[in-house]
Amino acid sequence: MKIPLGFRFASAYAGIRKIEKDDVALIVPDQPANAAAVFTTNMVQAAPVRLARQNLKTSKGQVGAVLINAGNANCATRTGDKVAETSCRAVAKALKLSAPLVFPASTGVIGVELKPALLTKAVPKLVEELSPEKFEAVASAILTTDTRMKTASEEVQFNDGPVRIAGMTKGSGMIHPNMATTLAFVMTDAVVTPKTLREILKTGTERSFNSLTVDGDMSTNDTLLLMASGASQVKPLAKEKEVLGEVITWVLESLAEQIAADGEGARKLVVVRAVGFKTSEDARRIARAIANSPLVKTAIAGNDPNWGRILTAAGYAGVPFDPSDIDVELQKVMVCTSGLAAEYDEPELKKKLDESEVRIRVINKKNGKGEARFFTCDLTEGYIRINGSYRT
Amino acid sequence: MKIPLGFRFASAYAGIRKIEKDDVALIVPDQPANAAAVFTTNMVQAAPVRLARQNLKTSKGQVGAVLINAGNANCATRTGDKVAETSCRAVAKALKLSAPLVFPASTGVIGVELKPALLTKAVPKLVEELSPEKFEAVASAILTTDTRMKTASEEVQFNDGPVRIAGMTKGSGMIHPNMATTLAFVMTDAVVTPKTLREILKTGTERSFNSLTVDGDMSTNDTLLLMASGASQVKPLAKEKEVLGEVITWVLESLAEQIAADGEGARKLVVVRAVGFKTSEDARRIARAIANSPLVKTAIAGNDPNWGRILTAAGYAGVPFDPSDIDVELQKVMVCTSGLAAEYDEPELKKKLDESEVRIRVINKKNGKGEARFFTCDLTEGYIRINGSYRT
Repeated sequence: MKIPLGFRFASAYAGIRKIEKDDVALIVPDQPANAAAVFTTNMVQAAPVRLARQNLKTSKGQVGAVLINAGNANCATRTGDKVAETSCRAVAKALKLSAPLVFPASTGVIGVELKPALLTKAVPKLVEELSPEKFEAVASAILTTDTRMKTASEEVQFNDGPVRIAGMTKGSGMIHPNMATTLAFVMTDAVVTPKTLREILKTGTERSFNSLTVDGDMSTNDTLLLMASGASQVKPLAKEKEVLGEVITWVLESLAEQIAADGEGARKLVVVRAVGFKTSEDARRIARAIANSPLVKTAIAGNDPNWGRILTAAGYAGVPFDPSDIDVELQKVMVCTSGLAAEYDEPELKKKLDESEVRIRVINKKNGKGEARFFTCDLTEGYIRINGSYRT
Repeated sequence: MKIPLGFRFASAYAGIRKIEKDDVALIVPDQPANAAAVFTTNMVQAAPVRLARQNLKTSKGQVGAVLINAGNANCATRTGDKVAETSCRAVAKALKLSAPLVFPASTGVIGVELKPALLTKAVPKLVEELSPEKFEAVASAILTTDTRMKTASEEVQFNDGPVRIAGMTKGSGMIHPNMATTLAFVMTDAVVTPKTLREILKTGTERSFNSLTVDGDMSTNDTLLLMASGASQVKPLAKEKEVLGEVITWVLESLAEQIAADGEGARKLVVVRAVGFKTSEDARRIARAIANSPLVKTAIAGNDPNWGRILTAAGYAGVPFDPSDIDVELQKVMVCTSGLAAEYDEPELKKKLDESEVRIRVINKKNGKGEARFFTCDLTEGYIRINGSYRT
């Protein structure tokens, strides 16, 4: 992992989770970092989402500390706003920051009161333990039903020297485009303005977190924060900015892929590509309908090359097409040509479907320029087991 | 069951299914019946759907025979159109009808060639066995992954005498508003024009089959056919027509409810009501988002009064509302009031959630006039088992 310069990290167990596993964390840039964020579009928004949005506006895109907790979403509770404010104030005081420089994020169960003392009591310990080495400790503390840590990093050489990008994320259920129960924190040590970060985040999110679906549910707490510490003292030139945006997008894509691969109960990452459609929005709808179809996802779980379900899902995506223009490939094997069954070796394909990554490609032979990609996972009995008993 | 006068029924085993269970059926009105139908809106449409739509148009709303098969959708195959035409011609010939009077419908696996001889060979046997008594035999023959027969009937007394309405349906997966892998055949012996039948079907479908979701997948074969034999010789008066429409809608609602209750792997019927929203379209979106949420449906499976997931699903329905206006009831117990946790006896509510019917009610205290109801089912491991291995 290439951790960007100028950030320190800490995590601790505050007693929010029932099991003793770190559940609070801090990310602190040495100096307030330039920042941009995207949030859930759900009508029901958790208190920390509302406060983070407001603080980022007040601070004009500056973040001095990120306070994260897992195990409780601090959403739809009587004391939510107060809890978010009190805990952020405690962090501001301990780090001698103005209050709007603290960016809160919570994930976990909805509708259960969160005791503010749990958070405020943990703050001194967190501040004391801050270290540039604890990136992975934080990446681990933010997880909930995830089965594995999700991080990605890149280093890129610019004219004035190297800059680093690293990100962490969590999430495995309630995952749908336009943000889900996902938190993501991505950092760079490049010198970048909040405005440029916002532009990068906009296209980067579209290609990553907004092209991701696990179960079609969209949460109340989703937050994706991008920060630039500037600690590398490398200011990308005009052309290098594009490269930086591209590399940050890679990190975002990797994080999104990891979420899909770790979807609740999932055994496989499924990557759906739609190509040759009229517009990229058309392709996106097709890819999303397929990625979101429980029937496609259960077929993938069962290693079943059931292209009929793929074609059917494409058919209700709301995009006009002629089925006789459509080819479908599974693991690069043509299973449907011109809307009809292709000849293929089914036992061999079933073996190929039993891999940890399954690629579905839907080709419109009208050869339009629109293409899109969506990440999802297979749908197994494990999803039901996890979600039939998560809360209680 | 009050079977409408003027219809005969037959079913047989034609060898389309692997197991020996009747898989073809005929419904034959004594005289060509007035009829109206709605079909799937999927871009991929099975050959019988295309032919049925065309025949009904050519015949100006007359149906002389309905030929149904289960076990093969006759969709996305090289010979689909030919199979549908050949088999309908065989029926037309045997019953001395003009070809466009035959209405075909198929359900089952997609993309597998269906041998036309299987159908044509079965026709003489079907015709020979036609009887007014075999309604339930047909209702059973059209089932696929269903675990039980789905029928409903009503009798209503008009000025000129009684009329009967009876319907049958199938479907338990690939179920979503705007038709799903569902076939439904509803008959009455009232004297009604095709135009009136179309009007009745339009509102009736909206309140029943278009308010139903099992898994969000919409099939290539969905067909709902309403026929009036006129055999009662009772012609409803202007006011009675409204009553007839209402009673036919009851039958449709009962059939839709039975599909939801028999959703693949389901143990519970879930009825979601949204009331007090600005428009009925708003209420519909809210009810649909909740009915379609895998997280809500797995919670119901686990007897978990997880109102946070219900509120969250409402929040991404695309309808603006203030969470503090929202109450949520589960089994008539208030679990969320003004967007916050209500006090309730959780062990007792968990017991109530363990019933075969679960009622969710979302109330917007702004007291708008918009309300809607959606039918769905819980989501269990059984759904995954069925769909991970259905085809192979």
